[in-house]
Amino acid sequence: MPELFQVITATQANERLAQHLTLLQRVEHVSLAEALDRVTAAELLSPTNLPTFPRSTMDGFAVRAADTYGASEGLPAYLNLCGEVPMGRAADVQVRLGEAARVHTGGMIPPGSDAVVMIENTQALDEQMIEVVRPVAMGENVLPVGDDVRQGDVLFPRGHWLRPQDLGGLAGVGLTSIPVVARPRVAILATGDEVVSADREPAAGQIRDINTHSVSALIRRAGGEPLPLGIAPDDAETMRQMACDALADADMLIISAGSSVSTRDMTAQMIAELGAPGVLVHGVSIRPGKPSILALADGKPVFGLPGNPVSTMIVYQLFVTPALHQLLGCTNPPARPLVQARLAQNVASRSGSEDFVPVYLEQRDDGLWAIPIFGKSNLIYTMVRADGLLQVPLDQAGLYAEDMVTIRLF
Amino acid sequence: MPELFQVITATQANERLAQHLTLLQRVEHVSLAEALDRVTAAELLSPTNLPTFPRSTMDGFAVRAADTYGASEGLPAYLNLCGEVPMGRAADVQVRLGEAARVHTGGMIPPGSDAVVMIENTQALDEQMIEVVRPVAMGENVLPVGDDVRQGDVLFPRGHWLRPQDLGGLAGVGLTSIPVVARPRVAILATGDEVVSADREPAAGQIRDINTHSVSALIRRAGGEPLPLGIAPDDAETMRQMACDALADADMLIISAGSSVSTRDMTAQMIAELGAPGVLVHGVSIRPGKPSILALADGKPVFGLPGNPVSTMIVYQLFVTPALHQLLGCTNPPARPLVQARLAQNVASRSGSEDFVPVYLEQRDDGLWAIPIFGKSNLIYTMVRADGLLQVPLDQAGLYAEDMVTIRLF
Repeated sequence: MPELFQVITATQANERLAQHLTLLQRVEHVSLAEALDRVTAAELLSPTNLPTFPRSTMDGFAVRAADTYGASEGLPAYLNLCGEVPMGRAADVQVRLGEAARVHTGGMIPPGSDAVVMIENTQALDEQMIEVVRPVAMGENVLPVGDDVRQGDVLFPRGHWLRPQDLGGLAGVGLTSIPVVARPRVAILATGDEVVSADREPAAGQIRDINTHSVSALIRRAGGEPLPLGIAPDDAETMRQMACDALADADMLIISAGSSVSTRDMTAQMIAELGAPGVLVHGVSIRPGKPSILALADGKPVFGLPGNPVSTMIVYQLFVTPALHQLLGCTNPPARPLVQARLAQNVASRSGSEDFVPVYLEQRDDGLWAIPIFGKSNLIYTMVRADGLLQVPLDQAGLYAEDMVTIRLF
Repeated sequence: MPELFQVITATQANERLAQHLTLLQRVEHVSLAEALDRVTAAELLSPTNLPTFPRSTMDGFAVRAADTYGASEGLPAYLNLCGEVPMGRAADVQVRLGEAARVHTGGMIPPGSDAVVMIENTQALDEQMIEVVRPVAMGENVLPVGDDVRQGDVLFPRGHWLRPQDLGGLAGVGLTSIPVVARPRVAILATGDEVVSADREPAAGQIRDINTHSVSALIRRAGGEPLPLGIAPDDAETMRQMACDALADADMLIISAGSSVSTRDMTAQMIAELGAPGVLVHGVSIRPGKPSILALADGKPVFGLPGNPVSTMIVYQLFVTPALHQLLGCTNPPARPLVQARLAQNVASRSGSEDFVPVYLEQRDDGLWAIPIFGKSNLIYTMVRADGLLQVPLDQAGLYAEDMVTIRLF
């Protein structure tokens, strides 16, 4: 029996689900060492100016700029040394008219001074006096208070995915306990009478569970916490019970459906009964991945992914990653790299479906080439051998050899 | 006093260090759940065929292909049903001449059969007999034994960075304890009399340690384990002692040098004395980051990075990330994404130096634009506000507004 469902585009499917998703409200406070690749749970304001004192950006002498106006090699300005500002200390000298204080890069400039002359533009006459041979403007070689960030400035909006430099920025203003959104807990249910755990020796007719492992890793990459539930047999009641238990605890559920139409139908029926409003999307105009299910059970997203490993990964990236980022409220999720390459051979496609073809890349004398890997979609090593995915748009019946194409790398 | 050093290009600097680096030999065995973003420590061979049995890729009937030759709607082939192969079990039927066995997608096809007819191309006459209305070729709709991977095949070379699909592939063949290269241990020493820990309230003239946090995160991204040592004062002997202690334990040492020329000179001198052969590179034709130091102390790489936060990150990515990947022996390190954008304003550059300018990206009606952020290089929020880096090549004196440029995203 062919499945009966109404096919919509991937974009429509994403939009339909997105309307129903709400931000996760659970917040954790983590240290800077744990904050990489987490998402801010609140707008973060700077508790301080950075820098908190006016800093020299050069080794040299803090002066009053006006004292150096017109100075040149031929007609230097003569200034009296009034002291030195040691690194890491408050300046305990005052620079008066006609005076200069020795300063180091990063050190405080003393009260009274308003610029720094680079040491290269000075000459020591004796221990008391220097010659300045080039003028400086007011503020030259000085980092004023708050030049980097001012107290009260918004450092990050809510929903910011924290990168290495962001942790540096937080450290700089002394924010060392960071409110982040809890990682969404994503339950994964593999199904199928033929599926056994990867650490077991399969008997004849059995295969090892692949999807739990690839999907767990994808969830980690997208900022979630995978909760593998194990493997359910092709039995609606057992599946339903495991799914219900999981949803009590998790924020999202992914079901890797069976491969045959009858078990897929059973999965769809079971998902429909998990909670309101039930199935939002059943059938998407993509290849592979057409029989995908997007559902909502009492506010929690539920995905029915096709059982085979390649479809599972492609459908995951199309629908689950965006949903996870939406739960996190993330405004700047990390992008997967894109590369331009020349297509090595024709790729046929059914018009009316977006096709995704794994490719590997080869650097040749005349540039980068993308070589499609035409495998049956149930071969996981098709994905292992690939560097990325080629997408054939909905309205194209195929792509031609030598076409310039965009490849999304893994 | 200006520093005295011989400047070479970034490429030359990388090559000079690379000659001296050797693979880390420490191996750990990790579970699949821990193997994401780790690097294989050995060539991995498949212990099994995948699949281990011939699988149907369709719901339908396993047949002898020859029995269907010439079959059509008008002249169907009539086959006797000899049984059904349940999912997850060995086929206990034998398909003989003129016979067919019901099979499900992913199930085993029985001995005697050599193809599968899709259910859509059949009609049940009664409980004993089906009509086949289209012929199948030998092997059609069947995944033969070892079609994905054969026993003994190389699954991954040594040095493979493990991605989500790779974990799926390992699960599929039952490899659940994976030999990976130990994470290189990278000690980080911040220095400077003015620097205090990020969780302390700085006194006048003091600043919080930024680099330990941004560099730790970068090390994690590149597959290493950061070992923050804390902050050394500008005192050669204390620094030397902390560096020596660290090198006894770590595989690599990063010193965030002081900002003033005198403390930088002291750092360079201290690094030179840490072990043979000592300093390999002192001075690179890049901006920011010119006074960078690349050294080797008794086989372990030591980096002296300029103290200011922006230079530190740029120099890190240029030199430390490749060195880490080389220690790991990694052949496919994750790439940072590149995007093409139009430059929003002129960028001047000193010819003879490779310049790196933080930019942010703006999607406008006519495409993507890159807006340079011209900040003093010691402002960490310059990097926080940026989406990526623009590189002005060595031989160019600058780039012009509206030029198409490549931006490396963070």
